[in-house]
Amino acid sequence: MNRRMILYTLGKMLMIEGLLMLLPFLIGVIYQEKEVWAYLIMAFLLCVLGKVMSLQKPKNKVIYAKEGFAIVAAAWIFLSVFGAIPFCMTGEIPSYVDAFFEIVSGFTTTGSSILTDIEALSHATLFWRSFSHWIGGMGILVFVVAFLPDANGSTLHILKAEMPGPIVGKLVSKITVSSQILYQIYTVLTIIEVILLMLGGMPFFDSLLNGFGTAGTGGFAIKNTSIAFYHSAYCDGIITFFMILFGVNFNLIYFFAIKKFAAAFKSEELCWYLFIIMASALAITCNILPMYTSFIEAFRYAIFQVASIITTTGYVTADYGQWPLFSQTILVLLMFVGACAGSTGGGMKVSRIIIGVKSAIAEMKRMIHPHSVTSVRFEGKYLSHATLGNIHVYWVLYFLLFGLSFLLVSLQNINFTSAFGAVATCFNNVGPGLGIVGPVGNFSSLTDLSKIVLSFDMLAGRLEIFPLLMFFNRSLWKR
Amino acid sequence: MNRRMILYTLGKMLMIEGLLMLLPFLIGVIYQEKEVWAYLIMAFLLCVLGKVMSLQKPKNKVIYAKEGFAIVAAAWIFLSVFGAIPFCMTGEIPSYVDAFFEIVSGFTTTGSSILTDIEALSHATLFWRSFSHWIGGMGILVFVVAFLPDANGSTLHILKAEMPGPIVGKLVSKITVSSQILYQIYTVLTIIEVILLMLGGMPFFDSLLNGFGTAGTGGFAIKNTSIAFYHSAYCDGIITFFMILFGVNFNLIYFFAIKKFAAAFKSEELCWYLFIIMASALAITCNILPMYTSFIEAFRYAIFQVASIITTTGYVTADYGQWPLFSQTILVLLMFVGACAGSTGGGMKVSRIIIGVKSAIAEMKRMIHPHSVTSVRFEGKYLSHATLGNIHVYWVLYFLLFGLSFLLVSLQNINFTSAFGAVATCFNNVGPGLGIVGPVGNFSSLTDLSKIVLSFDMLAGRLEIFPLLMFFNRSLWKR
Repeated sequence: MNRRMILYTLGKMLMIEGLLMLLPFLIGVIYQEKEVWAYLIMAFLLCVLGKVMSLQKPKNKVIYAKEGFAIVAAAWIFLSVFGAIPFCMTGEIPSYVDAFFEIVSGFTTTGSSILTDIEALSHATLFWRSFSHWIGGMGILVFVVAFLPDANGSTLHILKAEMPGPIVGKLVSKITVSSQILYQIYTVLTIIEVILLMLGGMPFFDSLLNGFGTAGTGGFAIKNTSIAFYHSAYCDGIITFFMILFGVNFNLIYFFAIKKFAAAFKSEELCWYLFIIMASALAITCNILPMYTSFIEAFRYAIFQVASIITTTGYVTADYGQWPLFSQTILVLLMFVGACAGSTGGGMKVSRIIIGVKSAIAEMKRMIHPHSVTSVRFEGKYLSHATLGNIHVYWVLYFLLFGLSFLLVSLQNINFTSAFGAVATCFNNVGPGLGIVGPVGNFSSLTDLSKIVLSFDMLAGRLEIFPLLMFFNRSLWKR
Repeated sequence: MNRRMILYTLGKMLMIEGLLMLLPFLIGVIYQEKEVWAYLIMAFLLCVLGKVMSLQKPKNKVIYAKEGFAIVAAAWIFLSVFGAIPFCMTGEIPSYVDAFFEIVSGFTTTGSSILTDIEALSHATLFWRSFSHWIGGMGILVFVVAFLPDANGSTLHILKAEMPGPIVGKLVSKITVSSQILYQIYTVLTIIEVILLMLGGMPFFDSLLNGFGTAGTGGFAIKNTSIAFYHSAYCDGIITFFMILFGVNFNLIYFFAIKKFAAAFKSEELCWYLFIIMASALAITCNILPMYTSFIEAFRYAIFQVASIITTTGYVTADYGQWPLFSQTILVLLMFVGACAGSTGGGMKVSRIIIGVKSAIAEMKRMIHPHSVTSVRFEGKYLSHATLGNIHVYWVLYFLLFGLSFLLVSLQNINFTSAFGAVATCFNNVGPGLGIVGPVGNFSSLTDLSKIVLSFDMLAGRLEIFPLLMFFNRSLWKR
């Protein structure tokens, strides 16, 4: 275990977190807010701490799989532990557990909130919350890999561990260049969305923060009524489009950018993803039709909510808690489906569902003809036994952890639906759940234990379980 | 595909069903009930139909895997389709969909009921309901294999497809003898339980039917308040003990019978099964303590309900819908865990959970050390890739089907908890669910669509998914 390299990378990461905190400081200065000093002090402390940790350059910069997992898990835990502190320092979230929950929800792009009055927050804090989505969406270590010239070791393992989805390839042969391309696409798309929102009359500050929330598929609202606040079909439409876009594998967006359209549209996962969105939106539209004045109006709210939930963003324009059970069940199932691999979205990922179905069909064929050779093809390629095994075990672990979390959260005597919804929404990095944690509710009434369990779930969901579990496994740390 | 052999075996099976219907007829005659003729007529018709189907002895009696699956799936569907008819003929369950749901619930040993007043039923019908548990518990085809001298082909595939659990071995080298031993153990244990219940003052008829319900881990009550009706700590205790016993792998009970105690107690699955029962019962006891007068009283209800749910029996002595969420969540999770492989119980089976956890640990080791060879041991043996693959795919299919069923059931606008509970309890062959289908509720208010979906789930759960799905797969039927 190359511990020095881990410490070094963590140090770099903390320094970047410190530098990033200068942005909310700047925002606070512009809006002349007194809370702003918290961000400056914390930025300074993080830079010093990061500098000390990365003082000693490791001679051996090679990173193997296990270092990759350790770095990613540690980075996300540290990022959250320190990222929460300004919320307490400004006094806006007095309890540290609450602040930790809130920032984990931010970095993991979940968007579940313990706040009862979001609009009371300072601009600096609003910015830091939403900006955490943007940092967490693409991954802070992808950023480190992309822009730190001396992090040029075998960093593929970091990229693999931090980018969501079972199958993530490099875009180009060089990792650092791949990471830079990813961040470029990410930034350009975010800017386009912000401009389009502003054209719809949304103020710059709101557009920027809602843009961060969309790009990271996060969903922290800056208004108590989320996106419903703007009462704008145009803005709903723009956000719907960009939510769906940010749920697409970035490799495909890259293909688009370099005009390889055929390659992009050949993607099985993309076709299923778009099909699921349309089918769900139409089913919900028909189901909620009696509650709205026209088909178009019902469709507007249905497609927004479907896009918001399947991409695990979590923005809200309608209180789906009032919709019939069928619509609610579709949304709950979409929470589990999630977006595409290699996007900023959470959930199990469309590809894992497709591969799960295909594995089941292949297994049944094998059972009928025990001596035949069956294999699973995905995106035109045969999947290896190791890849399939890993995806299957992911399913197993996913539901084991889900059950365990549900058990722990239900120690608090809330109702079944709320407890189930809380775990489902946090584990899949969505945001709103059902019942008391539904679209018009929040997580403030949960116990500290529940909040800690759900924070763990959010991290486990974002890092796709394995790195976080390994982090607490002694065998990872053996020399 | 050896279609003639399938037809032949189904014919034999229907004849046996016909003969078994003479028993409720006999009960009806004893109690001088006018509904009794339905059972006699149906018995006669089934025998004629079965005779016609099995008139032509197939020359080739060899059964391969695919014939095994086809026979098992077809047998269970036919068994239910015809087994439901007497309920309609007697007029006690006028709707055929209701009658079908009720008998599927019986044969699959689920115990969910659409009846609102069980005590209004005739003795003949009460007997047929509970007896269906006993037939379905061990499997009707195991019975055919055991006692029909000419069913001596390669019937291991039938046994494998009908006996629950991922790993089922033969007891002795000859299949027919193995099946006979299973039925002997099953019968003897049932008789012992019936006698013990009668010693506790329970009437013979009640003891017999409750014995059937326990042995098959079914749970159809013959009183509206289930086992709570008897207000007897002794009877609760006896039933608790036998529920736990019938949830144990029958191979282990055989080891006990031939005094190989060491072999029996070395079983990993048994140890975990007993540990889960004790841990859950104690946790619930502590959780519900304020609702009862003493620790002993709380423990009595807790252990009964835990045993009833984990073995997927479904008897009730307390309205657990009134217990705190934590206790309810434990029970819901136990529905999914289920009993041991090779028992009469349903659910995913303790062994599949253990193997799932071990696979996850092995996969994490492989990810940390990509070049190491990792394997999974269970019950002292290394599991093959094929076995592991099958178990993993079972997990995947299980949750896919669960989600799909949940979606279909939620077309009826009931509440989330009830819909979830209905699917969980039916798919795992438990009996009572949550909310309107909870321990003091029933399935009468569900729509026909929900009842058909849940009937499918009960069959899929009992046959462990694969045979039933294959039955509807064209490639199984190709020549």
